[in-house]
Amino acid sequence: MGRFSEPQHPDFRRLNTSLAFDRRLFAYDVAQSRAHARMLARQEIITEGDRDALIDALDVVGRELDEGRFHFADDDEDIHMAIERRVTELAGAAGGRLHTARSRNDQVVTDVAMFVSEHAAAAQTAATSLMSALIAAAEDHLDWPMPGYTHLQRAQPVYLSHHLLAYVWMLDRDRARFDAATHAASALPLGSGALAGVNFDTDRAYLAAELGFDDVLPNSIDAVASRDFVLDYLAAAATCATHLSRLGAELVLWSSEEFGFVTLPDAWSSGSSIMPQKRNPDAAELLRAKAPRVVAHLAAMHGVLHGLPLTYNKDLQEDKEHLFDVADTLELCLAGATGMIVGASFDRDRLAAAAADEMLGATDVADLLVRRGVPFREAHAVVGELVRVALESGRAVSSLDKNELRAVHPALDGEVGELLSGGHWLESKDSEGGTALRRVREQLAAARERVQPSDRSVATGKSA
Amino acid sequence: MGRFSEPQHPDFRRLNTSLAFDRRLFAYDVAQSRAHARMLARQEIITEGDRDALIDALDVVGRELDEGRFHFADDDEDIHMAIERRVTELAGAAGGRLHTARSRNDQVVTDVAMFVSEHAAAAQTAATSLMSALIAAAEDHLDWPMPGYTHLQRAQPVYLSHHLLAYVWMLDRDRARFDAATHAASALPLGSGALAGVNFDTDRAYLAAELGFDDVLPNSIDAVASRDFVLDYLAAAATCATHLSRLGAELVLWSSEEFGFVTLPDAWSSGSSIMPQKRNPDAAELLRAKAPRVVAHLAAMHGVLHGLPLTYNKDLQEDKEHLFDVADTLELCLAGATGMIVGASFDRDRLAAAAADEMLGATDVADLLVRRGVPFREAHAVVGELVRVALESGRAVSSLDKNELRAVHPALDGEVGELLSGGHWLESKDSEGGTALRRVREQLAAARERVQPSDRSVATGKSA
Amino acid sequence: MGRFSEPQHPDFRRLNTSLAFDRRLFAYDVAQSRAHARMLARQEIITEGDRDALIDALDVVGRELDEGRFHFADDDEDIHMAIERRVTELAGAAGGRLHTARSRNDQVVTDVAMFVSEHAAAAQTAATSLMSALIAAAEDHLDWPMPGYTHLQRAQPVYLSHHLLAYVWMLDRDRARFDAATHAASALPLGSGALAGVNFDTDRAYLAAELGFDDVLPNSIDAVASRDFVLDYLAAAATCATHLSRLGAELVLWSSEEFGFVTLPDAWSSGSSIMPQKRNPDAAELLRAKAPRVVAHLAAMHGVLHGLPLTYNKDLQEDKEHLFDVADTLELCLAGATGMIVGASFDRDRLAAAAADEMLGATDVADLLVRRGVPFREAHAVVGELVRVALESGRAVSSLDKNELRAVHPALDGEVGELLSGGHWLESKDSEGGTALRRVREQLAAARERVQPSDRSVATGKSA
Amino acid sequence: MGRFSEPQHPDFRRLNTSLAFDRRLFAYDVAQSRAHARMLARQEIITEGDRDALIDALDVVGRELDEGRFHFADDDEDIHMAIERRVTELAGAAGGRLHTARSRNDQVVTDVAMFVSEHAAAAQTAATSLMSALIAAAEDHLDWPMPGYTHLQRAQPVYLSHHLLAYVWMLDRDRARFDAATHAASALPLGSGALAGVNFDTDRAYLAAELGFDDVLPNSIDAVASRDFVLDYLAAAATCATHLSRLGAELVLWSSEEFGFVTLPDAWSSGSSIMPQKRNPDAAELLRAKAPRVVAHLAAMHGVLHGLPLTYNKDLQEDKEHLFDVADTLELCLAGATGMIVGASFDRDRLAAAAADEMLGATDVADLLVRRGVPFREAHAVVGELVRVALESGRAVSSLDKNELRAVHPALDGEVGELLSGGHWLESKDSEGGTALRRVREQLAAARERVQPSDRSVATGKSA
Repeated sequence: MGRFSEPQHPDFRRLNTSLAFDRRLFAYDVAQSRAHARMLARQEIITEGDRDALIDALDVVGRELDEGRFHFADDDEDIHMAIERRVTELAGAAGGRLHTARSRNDQVVTDVAMFVSEHAAAAQTAATSLMSALIAAAEDHLDWPMPGYTHLQRAQPVYLSHHLLAYVWMLDRDRARFDAATHAASALPLGSGALAGVNFDTDRAYLAAELGFDDVLPNSIDAVASRDFVLDYLAAAATCATHLSRLGAELVLWSSEEFGFVTLPDAWSSGSSIMPQKRNPDAAELLRAKAPRVVAHLAAMHGVLHGLPLTYNKDLQEDKEHLFDVADTLELCLAGATGMIVGASFDRDRLAAAAADEMLGATDVADLLVRRGVPFREAHAVVGELVRVALESGRAVSSLDKNELRAVHPALDGEVGELLSGGHWLESKDSEGGTALRRVREQLAAARERVQPSDRSVATGKSA
Repeated sequence: MGRFSEPQHPDFRRLNTSLAFDRRLFAYDVAQSRAHARMLARQEIITEGDRDALIDALDVVGRELDEGRFHFADDDEDIHMAIERRVTELAGAAGGRLHTARSRNDQVVTDVAMFVSEHAAAAQTAATSLMSALIAAAEDHLDWPMPGYTHLQRAQPVYLSHHLLAYVWMLDRDRARFDAATHAASALPLGSGALAGVNFDTDRAYLAAELGFDDVLPNSIDAVASRDFVLDYLAAAATCATHLSRLGAELVLWSSEEFGFVTLPDAWSSGSSIMPQKRNPDAAELLRAKAPRVVAHLAAMHGVLHGLPLTYNKDLQEDKEHLFDVADTLELCLAGATGMIVGASFDRDRLAAAAADEMLGATDVADLLVRRGVPFREAHAVVGELVRVALESGRAVSSLDKNELRAVHPALDGEVGELLSGGHWLESKDSEGGTALRRVREQLAAARERVQPSDRSVATGKSA
Repeated sequence: MGRFSEPQHPDFRRLNTSLAFDRRLFAYDVAQSRAHARMLARQEIITEGDRDALIDALDVVGRELDEGRFHFADDDEDIHMAIERRVTELAGAAGGRLHTARSRNDQVVTDVAMFVSEHAAAAQTAATSLMSALIAAAEDHLDWPMPGYTHLQRAQPVYLSHHLLAYVWMLDRDRARFDAATHAASALPLGSGALAGVNFDTDRAYLAAELGFDDVLPNSIDAVASRDFVLDYLAAAATCATHLSRLGAELVLWSSEEFGFVTLPDAWSSGSSIMPQKRNPDAAELLRAKAPRVVAHLAAMHGVLHGLPLTYNKDLQEDKEHLFDVADTLELCLAGATGMIVGASFDRDRLAAAAADEMLGATDVADLLVRRGVPFREAHAVVGELVRVALESGRAVSSLDKNELRAVHPALDGEVGELLSGGHWLESKDSEGGTALRRVREQLAAARERVQPSDRSVATGKSA
Repeated sequence: MGRFSEPQHPDFRRLNTSLAFDRRLFAYDVAQSRAHARMLARQEIITEGDRDALIDALDVVGRELDEGRFHFADDDEDIHMAIERRVTELAGAAGGRLHTARSRNDQVVTDVAMFVSEHAAAAQTAATSLMSALIAAAEDHLDWPMPGYTHLQRAQPVYLSHHLLAYVWMLDRDRARFDAATHAASALPLGSGALAGVNFDTDRAYLAAELGFDDVLPNSIDAVASRDFVLDYLAAAATCATHLSRLGAELVLWSSEEFGFVTLPDAWSSGSSIMPQKRNPDAAELLRAKAPRVVAHLAAMHGVLHGLPLTYNKDLQEDKEHLFDVADTLELCLAGATGMIVGASFDRDRLAAAAADEMLGATDVADLLVRRGVPFREAHAVVGELVRVALESGRAVSSLDKNELRAVHPALDGEVGELLSGGHWLESKDSEGGTALRRVREQLAAARERVQPSDRSVATGKSA
C-alpha cells in the first residue's frame, strides 16, 4: 500500500493472510463480480465494453480456479485480491474498474452470505436423507419391542420404530433452523461500500435478484459490521450436531456386548490394531465427539463479535475458518449417521428379551389400580410394595398368587400376571404420540410427508 | 420411595434437589395442573367432583405461592412434588388422582416450554423498547456528522442517526430469533407420560388449546428427551447479548475523555470510591461483560445434551438454571441499554470535529477520479500519493495548490479542496442503505414501522 | 456520589449491585480490613487509638455478619461499602480512616484471592477423600476380574481395582492443578491502590504475612487488572469436573440392567414418580451433567477478560458469580462421588461373567504366536482368521480342535484353549503399570502414599 | 481388518482418517519407534538383527518424511500405520515385529505428549521474547507519563514503562502455566498397551529416559484414557491468548486518531482497499480476535472428554486438531505481539498531554487532606465538592484561589494548585509496586532477571 515505506513482516503476512482458507469462496466471488460488472454497466457507471471485458476475464478466472490451474501470486493476500489481480492481467484497464462502487468490506460479507445459504441447503438435504433412512428403518422394525429407558434404566417398553422416529422429529426441527439461517443470509450486503454506502447510483435490487438474494440490507454500517447470520447457521449446526451426538452415543451403547441391540455395518466399522476380534463403532464415536467442536466454533464466533465496535474490524476475518470447519464437519457427520442407519442390523431377540423384563410393566399395574378407583399415588405405593414382596421372595411379580396379591391390596387380582406377561402394555400406550402401533403408524405417515420431494416448506417437528 | 431401605444422604439431597430454583416455575405448574384436571374430567378419567376438588385446591396453592405464604416441607424435592403434596393436603383423596396419566417427565418439560414462551415474549418487548429508544435518538440526531470507523480508524463520515440505526436492525433480527424460539416451544409435550405415552384416553389437543400451545409433539420419546427449544431461546439470547456487548463497548469508548462523544446519564453511571472526579460507565461495561455469560450458558446446555442417550435423564434438570439466569440477565441488559440510550447526551461539537478530519474524504477524491475516467485501482494509488505529498510537506491535502495536484495526476483540480472541505461527501453516499440524509430518512420510516404497536409480525431486519 | 445530580435508576442498581453475591466474601473482607488497620497504625498513618476503634468495630461487624444479624442498608452497593458503613457507625471518625491507602480495586481482588486459596484447599481435601474412597474400594475388590473396554467394546480383562485406581491418578493430578491455582493466588494485590500504588508509606510485606500470602504482586496495574489466578482455579475445577463426569457416566452405565456391574447405595439413588420399580442413579447423572457447567464458567471468565483494556473495569465484577458457582458445584460433586463410591455394591458374578468372554483373550493368542517367532502383524492376521473360523462354525474359539487350529497356522496348538479359558491372561499383563496383581499392589502402595495425612506435597499422578 | 467382509465406505474413511492432520506427529512417532525397537532388543523380545533392521528402516522413513519424499498409500489410515507399513517394506519380516508389546492406544498418546512438551517449550520461548521486547520498551520509555485508566476513564497518571511491565508479569505467569503443562506431559504412557499393560517384560524406565520423559504413568488404563495434560496445555494457551487479546485491544485503541498514543510499524500494518489514507492495525485486531478461538478449542476438548467411559475411545482422536491449531495460533500471536512492540512508536506529546489532565490529581488532593487529619471519606467528599465548584464556574480546579478553596474546606490551601500542576503525583506513588520511578526501576531489575538466559526456573510473576 502506497503510504508505507517498509515491507510487511513475514510473520505479519502469515498472521494476516486469509488466502489459505478463503480461496474456497472463489465461486461466490466470481459470481458476485460478474453481477457487479453487469450492474455497473446497466447504471452506466462503466461502459458495455468494460463490462464485456470483465465478464470474459471473470469467466476465464472462474475456470482456472475451478480446474485448479489458477496461479496465486506471492502477494495475493486474499481470494478477492487474487481474482482482481488476475482479472486485471486479462482485461487490462477495465480490470481496474471492477472495484468501482464496492469495497472489500461489503464484498467479503456477501461471499460469506452466499456460502451460508449454500451450506444451509446442503445441511437440509443431508438431514432429509438421514430422516428418510430413519423412517425406512422404522418401517422395517415397526413392531419390534425394546425397552424404553429413563436414567438409562429400563422403564417402559416401546417399539424400536417409535424410538427411531424420535430422531426424525429432532432433525425436522433442525431443518427449520437452517431455514432461519438461510433467511437471515438472504438480505444482500453488497452495495454498502466500506461502511457508508457508495458515491455511485447503483442498483442493489438488481444485484440481489441476480445473486439469488431476497432483499437488500437497509443499513450500510450494519451490513459490513454484522455477522449474526453466521451465528444463526452455526447455532443450527450446533443443535443438529448435538442431536447427532445423542444418536452416536446410542449406537455406541447398543453396539456393546452388554446391550447387543445393533451391529453396525462393516463399511462403517473399524478393526483394532492389537485386538483382532474387535469391531469398533468409530464412526458412531465420532458423531458423539464432533458436537463439542461445532459448539465451540459457535462460541468462538460469539467471542469474535464480543464487544467489537462497529463497523468492519479485522477480527471479522475469523468468521471463515469457524464456518468452513462446521460445514465440513456437519455434512460429513450427517452422511455418517445416514450410512450407519442404512446398514445397521438390529437384533430382534436381544431387543425383545430386554423388553420382556416384567419390571417394565409396573406402571401399568399401577394404572390398572387407578382404573379400579385407587388414587394414583396410592396405586404407586402398592406397586412398590408388590415389587418388594417379589424381590424378597426371590420370585417374579407375575408368579405371585392371588392370595399374595390380595394381601398387598384387595384390588389386585389375576389380571396382574397377564398385564406383566409382555406385549400387552405396549399397545395400551394409545394416547396421541404414544408407542401403540396405531399411533406409530400415524407418526410414520406424518414423518413421510415431511420428507416428500414435493414438500417445499420446512416445518418445526410438529405433526402436520 | 417404597423400595428403599436407607434415607437419602444430605449431600445427595443438596445435589439432587431443584426446589431452590424450580420454584419459580410454580405458576406454570399450577396452570398446567388445572388444565390437566379439567381434561381428565372431560375424558371421564376422573369424576367432576374430583376435578372440582383439584381445581379448588390448585387455586389455593397458586395464591399461597403467589403471595409467598406457601410452606415448603423438608422433603419437597421439587416444585411439582411440593404442589402435589399441598393439593393432596387440601383435596384429600382427589389429590392422589392429579398425577393420573401424567409423569414428572412430561410435566417438567411443559413448564419449561411455558417459561420459554413467556420470556421470549419478554425479550421481544424489551428489544422493541430499545429499538424505539434508538429510533428516537436517531431522529434527534438525524444530521449530526461523526466519523465512521473501520479497524477503529476514522474511515468515512456518517450521520450519528445512521450509526444508531445499525443497532435497530440487529435487534429487529434478534426479535425474529425469539419468534423462532417461541415457535419451537409451542408444541405441547404434556401427555407423553414418562416416555411412551399413557394408558388413558387423553385429549392432548384440548390441553394444548387450554395452555396456549399451537400443537402437540408427535412423539412421546422426543417430547420428554429433547430440549432443543431451550437451545433456540438461549441462542437467540446469546446473539442479542452479543449485539448489546457491541453497543456497550461503543458507549464505554465514546464516554472516554479521548473520544468525548457521549455523556451517559447520572442515573446510569457510578462514581469512584477513591477518585471523586470520575463518572464511570458501569452499566455499559456490564452490557459488554454479560455476553460471555449468556453464551456460556448456551454452550453449557449443549454440553448437557451432548451424547445423552434417550429418553429422560437427570442431566436435563440442568436446563433450568442456565435458562433462568439467561432470562434475568438479558432482560436486565435490555432495560439497561434502553435507559442509557434514552438518557445519553451526545456532544455535537466533538463529533463534528472528529468528522471534519479531511482524511475521511480520501475515498471520495478517488471516486472523483473514477468519474473522470481513471480506473479505480489507479485512482486509489493517486490518492495514496496525494496523502504522502501532503504528509511529507506537513500540510493538509486541501491546502495543496493546483500545480501540486496536477503534478500528482492531471485529472486532479480545485474540486479536490472542495470535496475535502467537509459535509459534501456525506450526502454523496446516496446509494440504497447509504448515509445520505434521504436514505437515512427512508431507513427511519422503515424502522418506525417495525416498532408500531400494530405490528404483529416480527421480521428479519430487512427493509419492508 | 457528590458530582451527580440525579439518583441512580432502579434498573441500574439491579444491574450494578453485587451485594446479592459478594456478601459471601465478608469474612475475607473483615480479615483484610483488620490487617490493613494494623498496618496503617504500624506505619503511623493512623493512630493506635484509631486502629483499636477500627479493630473493635470490625470484630462486631464480623460477628454480626457471621450470625446473620447484620442489617444491610438500601444503598449498600457491595459488601465492602456495607462493612465500611457499619464500621463508621460503630467507630465514628476512625471509620472514615479505614480506606486510607486502599481502593476498592485492590480490596476486591484481595478478597477474591483469599476465596480462591480457601476453595482450592477445599477441593484438594474433597479430592483426597474421593481418592481414599477409591483406594479402599480397590483394596476391597483387588482381584475381581472385569472386562476392560475400548470403544465400549470388551477388549481385555482387568481387575476392578485397576480400573478404580485409574481415577485416583486423575484426581491426584487435579490436586496438583489446585496447588498451582493456590500458588497463583498467593501474591498479594492489596496495597496497589486504584491502579498506580498509593501516596503513603505502606508495608505490603507485613500485610502479606498477616493474611497468609507468600509474596506481593510487583506491579500495581497488573494487580488490579488481572484475574488469571481465577482462571487457574476455574481450569483446575473444569478438569476435575470433567474427570468426575467420566466417573459419573461409568456409574450410570454400570447401573443399567444390561451391564449390572454395580448397585448404587439407596442413600444416593432416587425412585421414580411413575415407575415404582426404578432405582435411578440421579447423583451419577448429575456428576456427568455438571462438567459442562463448570467448563462454561471457565469459558465465560475468559470472555470477560477478552480484549479488556487495563486496568480495572466493571466487567471484572463478573468474576465472582462464575467463581462461586464453580466452588459450590465442584465441592458438592466431589462429595457426591465419594458417597457413591463408598456405598457402591459391585456384582462379582456379573463382572466375572463379562470378563470370561473368551474373545478377550485374542490378543494374548497373538502374543503367544509372537513368542513362537511369528511377527506381530502376521500373528494379528492369524487370530483374525481364527475368530472368523469359529464364528462361521458357530462355536467358541476354545472349542476348535488341534487340527482346526493347525489348519489356520502351524504354530497354533492346545495352549490356545488354555489361554482362552480365563484368568490366565490377566496375570500375564505384568509390565509396569499393568493389571497383573503384583503391579496393582505396587500401584495401591503408591496411591496410599499420596493420601497419607502426613503427605504435604501434592504431586502429579506419577508413581513416587 | 480380517473379520470384515465389506470394504469401508468412502465417507467413513473421510470421517475416520486422521492422516491429514496427524502426519505432523511423524518425527515423534519415528523417535518413539526407534526407542521402542532398542528397548525390545535390550529385553531380548526381538533380536539385535531385527533391531538394526528396524532402526535402519526408521532412519530412512524419518528422512523421507522430513524431506517430503514419503509416499502415502491409499489405505494409510493414520501416520502410525503409514510408518509401520513403510518400515515393513524396508525391513521385511522385522517390520512386523515393531508393534510387539505396543498398541496404537499407548503409541498415539505418547506422540501427543511429546508434541505438547515441545510446543509448551516453544510457547515459553516466544513468551520470553515478548517479555524482553516489553522490558526493552519499558526501558526506552521509562519516565514517559501517560494516564492510567479505570473504566476507560483517565484515573491517575502512570509511567508508560509501568503500564508495559504489567504485561511482563502476566506473561511470566503464563510461562509457569506452560511449565505445569510440560510437567503433566512428562510421565510416559508408552508401555501401557491397549489398556491393560502388555504380555512382555518391557523396560518403561529405559523408554522414558530415551525419550526425555521424567517418569512413567503408573496405571495403564489411565495412560490410554486420559488427556488432561492436553487440557493443561490448552488452558495455559487460553490464558496467554486472553492476555494477548488485552494487549491487542490496547494497541488498537492507542492507534486510533482519538488516542493517538502509538503508531504501529509499517511491517505490521495494512492499508485499505478503498481508503488510501488508512493504516490499519490488523495484527493487533487479530491478537484480540484469536483468543476466543483458543478458548473454544479448550472448551471443545473438555467436551470431547465429557462423560466418556474409560478407556480409549475414538473420540480421543479429536485431541489433535484442537491442539495443533492452538499451537500454531498461539505461537504466531506471540511473534506478532513481539513484532508490534519492537516496532511501536509512541507519541510522547500525546501521552503527556493526556496525563496532564488535572482531574487525574484529584485523589492526591484527597490524600493531602488525609495527611492533614481529615478522615478519608470526608476528604473524598471535599474533593467532589471542589470539582463541582470548578466545573460550575467553568474553570480548572488549579485556578481556584485560596478563598475559594478555604470556602470548600479550611484544610485546603495553595498547595492544591501545586499538587495539580502535574508530575508531582506520579512520584508520590512510591509504595511497593507503585508507579514512582524508584519502584519501576526495582520492577525492571526484577523483570530483567526473569528473562536472563541463565534463568532456568519459571516462576509465577511475583518479584524475586
